[in-house]
Amino acid sequence: MIDYQSILNNIYQEVIQEKDKGEIATYIPELANIDKNTFGIHLQLISGDSFSVGDSEKKFSIQSISKVLSLALAISKVGTNIWNRLDVEPSGNPFNHLSLLELEKGIPRNPFINSGAIVIADILVSLLDSPKIDFLAFIREISGDSGIDYNYKVADSEKKTGFNNYAAANLLKSFNNLENDVDVVLDFYFHQCSIEMTCSQLTKAFYLLANKGKCLANNKILTKSQAKRINAIMLTCGFYDEAGEFAFEVGLPGKSGVGGGIVALLPNEFIISVWAPGLNERGNSKLGMQALEQFTTQTNQSIF
Amino acid sequence: MIDYQSILNNIYQEVIQEKDKGEIATYIPELANIDKNTFGIHLQLISGDSFSVGDSEKKFSIQSISKVLSLALAISKVGTNIWNRLDVEPSGNPFNHLSLLELEKGIPRNPFINSGAIVIADILVSLLDSPKIDFLAFIREISGDSGIDYNYKVADSEKKTGFNNYAAANLLKSFNNLENDVDVVLDFYFHQCSIEMTCSQLTKAFYLLANKGKCLANNKILTKSQAKRINAIMLTCGFYDEAGEFAFEVGLPGKSGVGGGIVALLPNEFIISVWAPGLNERGNSKLGMQALEQFTTQTNQSIF
Amino acid sequence: MIDYQSILNNIYQEVIQEKDKGEIATYIPELANIDKNTFGIHLQLISGDSFSVGDSEKKFSIQSISKVLSLALAISKVGTNIWNRLDVEPSGNPFNHLSLLELEKGIPRNPFINSGAIVIADILVSLLDSPKIDFLAFIREISGDSGIDYNYKVADSEKKTGFNNYAAANLLKSFNNLENDVDVVLDFYFHQCSIEMTCSQLTKAFYLLANKGKCLANNKILTKSQAKRINAIMLTCGFYDEAGEFAFEVGLPGKSGVGGGIVALLPNEFIISVWAPGLNERGNSKLGMQALEQFTTQTNQSIF
Amino acid sequence: MIDYQSILNNIYQEVIQEKDKGEIATYIPELANIDKNTFGIHLQLISGDSFSVGDSEKKFSIQSISKVLSLALAISKVGTNIWNRLDVEPSGNPFNHLSLLELEKGIPRNPFINSGAIVIADILVSLLDSPKIDFLAFIREISGDSGIDYNYKVADSEKKTGFNNYAAANLLKSFNNLENDVDVVLDFYFHQCSIEMTCSQLTKAFYLLANKGKCLANNKILTKSQAKRINAIMLTCGFYDEAGEFAFEVGLPGKSGVGGGIVALLPNEFIISVWAPGLNERGNSKLGMQALEQFTTQTNQSIF
Repeated sequence: MIDYQSILNNIYQEVIQEKDKGEIATYIPELANIDKNTFGIHLQLISGDSFSVGDSEKKFSIQSISKVLSLALAISKVGTNIWNRLDVEPSGNPFNHLSLLELEKGIPRNPFINSGAIVIADILVSLLDSPKIDFLAFIREISGDSGIDYNYKVADSEKKTGFNNYAAANLLKSFNNLENDVDVVLDFYFHQCSIEMTCSQLTKAFYLLANKGKCLANNKILTKSQAKRINAIMLTCGFYDEAGEFAFEVGLPGKSGVGGGIVALLPNEFIISVWAPGLNERGNSKLGMQALEQFTTQTNQSIF
Repeated sequence: MIDYQSILNNIYQEVIQEKDKGEIATYIPELANIDKNTFGIHLQLISGDSFSVGDSEKKFSIQSISKVLSLALAISKVGTNIWNRLDVEPSGNPFNHLSLLELEKGIPRNPFINSGAIVIADILVSLLDSPKIDFLAFIREISGDSGIDYNYKVADSEKKTGFNNYAAANLLKSFNNLENDVDVVLDFYFHQCSIEMTCSQLTKAFYLLANKGKCLANNKILTKSQAKRINAIMLTCGFYDEAGEFAFEVGLPGKSGVGGGIVALLPNEFIISVWAPGLNERGNSKLGMQALEQFTTQTNQSIF
Repeated sequence: MIDYQSILNNIYQEVIQEKDKGEIATYIPELANIDKNTFGIHLQLISGDSFSVGDSEKKFSIQSISKVLSLALAISKVGTNIWNRLDVEPSGNPFNHLSLLELEKGIPRNPFINSGAIVIADILVSLLDSPKIDFLAFIREISGDSGIDYNYKVADSEKKTGFNNYAAANLLKSFNNLENDVDVVLDFYFHQCSIEMTCSQLTKAFYLLANKGKCLANNKILTKSQAKRINAIMLTCGFYDEAGEFAFEVGLPGKSGVGGGIVALLPNEFIISVWAPGLNERGNSKLGMQALEQFTTQTNQSIF
Repeated sequence: MIDYQSILNNIYQEVIQEKDKGEIATYIPELANIDKNTFGIHLQLISGDSFSVGDSEKKFSIQSISKVLSLALAISKVGTNIWNRLDVEPSGNPFNHLSLLELEKGIPRNPFINSGAIVIADILVSLLDSPKIDFLAFIREISGDSGIDYNYKVADSEKKTGFNNYAAANLLKSFNNLENDVDVVLDFYFHQCSIEMTCSQLTKAFYLLANKGKCLANNKILTKSQAKRINAIMLTCGFYDEAGEFAFEVGLPGKSGVGGGIVALLPNEFIISVWAPGLNERGNSKLGMQALEQFTTQTNQSIF
């Protein structure tokens, strides 16, 4: 039997002493003001037990982590047809994200780069009666927590500074790969990214992906095959230009966000989330990456 | 003494018999409805004489040709400072126009690719009291023709379908290379492209570039050096991905537009404009290119 | 208990009826003459049992599959220092493989693209007394089979037509990322690719990667962590531009070769290899991909 | 009447006081040992007079300037058929020269980037009985100077360090755009680049391009149209990634070499060459560019 609590405590002790805590994202005021020393982990076993350390009950902006949840909702509603409009290959290009989209004539590389997530947002806008209300309801349902909500200030800030996303959405539109108005799709997209969760809520929201598609309340949200495939995409595409590195060092499917959160999971075993707002050069939580690497090393658990 | 009228007549006779007249741009209704058989040339000598053949007095949408005129106005007002925000190198990339902009961190390659012209439009929006009114006044002044005007329907159509330009403007904005609002800049930009001229008016508007900066009415609009430099940019960047080919086959500085117009000039000698709405695969007037090639071959005149 | 033999038989029956068997690689005569109808599978359980169907005992050219074995040898000798000279990120670019190498200043994206494997070959040439003899000895040792050998005709043919590999090696050299002479490194590299194995031998050679670094004879060749990391790279980079697709559809770490072979594994459970020489558009065995997809679907086994 | 000698003297006085003389190319010992203070100009009028200042009679390595002469020889022998194997568009890409070649499937952008010049070298190797002897004979003929020769040490050094050129030639070969053996073509290419000339000899060698195809001895080497077209390519492609800048600042067709030489010409008027071995960041002679800019400003002469 692994003593998870001791392992989390050890990691916490070691990681908080790290001098270089990375750089906080500063492009919107709401993210810039976070204390760099914040650090929390939550571990949720499929068997039911859970463990935590540090600031695991503080809310943070999940940002790109939301892309996994919007993909899950789109797949649960539309199934494999969504793959007509985007691909599942790693982007592999640290330099030019719009160029790849341009080169590939408006078909985003995968659902976790911005242009791909915008296509998923477009699919949901077409499908849902009230996209913002319905998406939030979905997240509350799968995590069994009605306290989860948007941060409207964050969404508003992103709308004012998100020129690169406007560029991507207009480029998609120029290639006929966006059905709805750019402003409508991006309004939904920016809200989706603004969702706030605690580490603990995040592991609950991702429970279904480690549990063959069934959420905490045991409802079947995705088929087993759908859950497996989303995990595969997280592994190959979940960490921007560091996906290979994360697979190599940590060895779990996962997803990071610019707010400093990371969630990762071992199918049938556990979901773990970390929050440490300082980012490394590639935009992933610096201490979060370290903590997860140590976690899989010390517990000797990974998909490989 | 060259018999220009005979040469124009010969070219006209030969070119109108060409079976493959290229493809008309169809992305906006106003351009799509033009008769493919339209063809006109106007030649204006610096010495004063002028010659024409065919539909040289019909108005057409000058589109990208307007980029030379907005550059001239910006240079006349701001001088060399404009080069802090864009470069003068050929784009050379037939595939990915936004990728080059992304790779070069928001500095457009030259003022004649869309992103470069949008930066020029931004400069003018910052400078001018009433950009649309003032720009039109400038064009009427240099061409000595108050009958030149915008086509508001064309401008409106472009606004509704110009997603790629919205993408470019937002990408510029994300790199802090756009001072004004995207919508304001593009509104001006789309109007500028919608200007209509006849072949005859077009040669008059470009007179100053072949005449050391002095327009038809003999007013000094640009310094000699400014005129020379705009001509150099036309030669290296005036024909999208076919600039080398045009220099090679025709050997004159010039600029084309998707409406099927081309204007070219031999400094101190003449300005010539052609209109034939069918485009070749690289987006330049097919018969227009042929006509100009024959003109420089038959008159034995080029800058090389 | 899964009835593996029945599953293999079913897959065999279904797959051999497929009309479109893909295209055989024709760039060297030795590959071009293979019968398109050849098809074999071998499954080796870590527990000891093995199962097979079809042409599982015919030898074929393992080609790029050898890149995993040369990486394993280099890592076993040099450890993590090899990562100073290449990265572990997916290449993600279907179009320009040399351009990525050029853009990233001679650091190959990962050890499974050609330029990366050439760097590994260079490392081995520097390390080993007799690279070709020693590498073959390593493969015979880990697979426990002294019958495995190079095909010298294939190596020779590749040397005569491998201009793209000469381009890559010279580009590496121009970036000071190749220590030895281009000809010496490529001679070793082409021999390495020419190794021939049966499906059965291939599963034995890869046994150590599914068995925490210990080969069939129970010798420790790699540490557990090294084996895990090689599996991670196979998952993110093992299938050229189809790595995401293979992870998505099959969900196992694996590696393909242009000879039509694929090997994949589930850590601690099994190694499976397939051979079907017809390739899909992305250069991976068409029927091999299908067979493996069905295998993980029918056995309900994958890392996700 | 322009007082050319005074203008050259003034330029000389001003330029030699410049503190930042650029950086000397160091990749081969023969270039690295040149004195940075060397500076010479030679001006040859078509009318016959010539003027010079500084080290105009010292020999230097013409390097890439030779590409214009090999193009001239190829065109004089083969005519327009050479354009089946390469294009005439500016490369426009400061970052990735091999990538453009790869993206465009082995068709070099123009004859003045390395891959394009290698294709021209291949054409000459196929055509000429003794390529090295015949090419030298051609240059001696057009310049009327039997003292021009290869520098065999320089050719040898380039052969030992020219890995990027080997990469380009092999990439061309992989796209079937190289008829002869890589080693044979590059041996010729490296010799061609090693030719040494004085400023004075260089203006004589380029005389035919400013004189409608007739060389100094009044023999017709090229048709008028061929000369004109080579001039056009020099203007759009003659200065690596600074072609637009040179056209913009200087306004003459020209070609630079990494040895610090530049030659430029005004058709029907003059040929001017400058040598100053320190290079700017884009690989063109720093003081040479300045000198030519001043020359066209002070003489008020350019093609624009």
